Amino acid sequence: MSLSGRLVIVGAGLIGGSIAAGARERGYASYVVGVDADRSALEQGTGLALLDATGTPKDLGPDDLVVIATPTLAVPGVLAELAASGERFAGGATVTDVASVKSNVVEAAAGLPGGMPEGFVPGHPIAGSERSGIGAARADLFVGRRVILTPAESTEAMARERVRDLWESLGAEVSEMDVADHDRVLAMTSHLPHLLAFALVDTLGREPEHEAIFGLAAGGFRDFTRIASSDATMWADVFMANGAAVVDVLDRLLLDLGELRTLVQTGDRAALHEVLSRAKRLRDAHVPGAGEY
Amino acid sequence: MSLSGRLVIVGAGLIGGSIAAGARERGYASYVVGVDADRSALEQGTGLALLDATGTPKDLGPDDLVVIATPTLAVPGVLAELAASGERFAGGATVTDVASVKSNVVEAAAGLPGGMPEGFVPGHPIAGSERSGIGAARADLFVGRRVILTPAESTEAMARERVRDLWESLGAEVSEMDVADHDRVLAMTSHLPHLLAFALVDTLGREPEHEAIFGLAAGGFRDFTRIASSDATMWADVFMANGAAVVDVLDRLLLDLGELRTLVQTGDRAALHEVLSRAKRLRDAHVPGAGEY
Repeated sequence: MSLSGRLVIVGAGLIGGSIAAGARERGYASYVVGVDADRSALEQGTGLALLDATGTPKDLGPDDLVVIATPTLAVPGVLAELAASGERFAGGATVTDVASVKSNVVEAAAGLPGGMPEGFVPGHPIAGSERSGIGAARADLFVGRRVILTPAESTEAMARERVRDLWESLGAEVSEMDVADHDRVLAMTSHLPHLLAFALVDTLGREPEHEAIFGLAAGGFRDFTRIASSDATMWADVFMANGAAVVDVLDRLLLDLGELRTLVQTGDRAALHEVLSRAKRLRDAHVPGAGEY
Repeated sequence: MSLSGRLVIVGAGLIGGSIAAGARERGYASYVVGVDADRSALEQGTGLALLDATGTPKDLGPDDLVVIATPTLAVPGVLAELAASGERFAGGATVTDVASVKSNVVEAAAGLPGGMPEGFVPGHPIAGSERSGIGAARADLFVGRRVILTPAESTEAMARERVRDLWESLGAEVSEMDVADHDRVLAMTSHLPHLLAFALVDTLGREPEHEAIFGLAAGGFRDFTRIASSDATMWADVFMANGAAVVDVLDRLLLDLGELRTLVQTGDRAALHEVLSRAKRLRDAHVPGAGEY
């Protein structure tokens, strides 16, 4: 179902721009408003014909949908502004966000005057790119991707439906999860891999001859470290917002790595081979798209 | 320059098969012999028209080129056989290998009766795939890839030239390095990333609900763990052969990770942001092909 009101994108970056591009191209929204403190990002969005107007609309109403697409730690501030903008949260509009961590967002929403707004549906599209900025926006960024919503019991059914419609119109597959489960699983499949990739590149960068070292890297290294080219601001926010879960899964990995280190150091080929075979089997069997290269 | 004698491939797997395919397609060799204990791999190679004959040739001579394309730890045994096959090492043929670790191979060669054979040129094509087996062979596997040779001072100039010709005919870029430097750099850019990828998949695999967890993984995770789908036998060998260098660079990474862990746990966003930005800059600037996705 298409949106009768306005689609308001707060945060004119890769994700916000891609939502605007997809919603327009696929006929979900006919009028898109961009909000961002960075005027040049808004101008770029207007120039790319992604935005019809810019600046916070004064008269948000029940037909409008607001998507908060800022870095994770900026979401609570936007929620507070939307709560302060009128008697009803966001003028009665449906509001969602795209932050990679949900517990801090939900806590902030629950802490608003009147508690968790019934029109707020926390969300997370599991999609992205190591590229950033509205100039990298793509209408098909969410096609075939998973989007997780973490609504509260009190969340309005209509708001839930509307946010689900948005993502399905963009080609995504929508499901719902418990907030803590979401953050724990994402710490494992996304946040920890990013931390490892950043750490590896940083460790090698400390070598005096690191340029020559990187020059000998092949495709495996390039793929492994691709996520270390991600936006540093976004990721610093993620690690701040989901620190406890990230540290927890990092500690489990460090135990596992310590065992592997012992097997390598003591030359226990049989035990090492067993671990490597098990990991290969797991990945081949369970990682989506593992056979596509 | 093309080879007047036979190209003998010992080890009919992905790398050996791809050398055969490329050498044939690009006119470097007109007669390719495959040697492998696994008869079905040889039959597959013959069926794919990669091999003209199979089984160790009895009369290797100065015009022949032998490429040892077995897993790392099997190379010393093949070298010993080639040394035992006649008065002159491999009948005077040029011999090279493709093992990812060079110090154990060079030590084994130096320990042969008569010392390091003058016709042996240790080599390592920095190319591969998480796929394995001769069925995955590709004539273009080495196009644009680096190949590192680690010859000794005593290595014959003609043998060096011949091995260089082989790789250049396959489209690779050939350079020479010191053995220890090679193994240290490869521990950083290849062996450690593989260990991390195997470890991460294994750690997540220990979760009772690991199928659901892997199901929520996105493209970043898929790329990060791609190398965990690599051949377990090959990689157990690599970690055995290059254990000391791998443990050394792993320990440096663990120190770095420990610092990052502290920054995440204490919520030091500024310091964390600095590390992430530095890593992103390094990767964007120095990793070959970092801009190609």
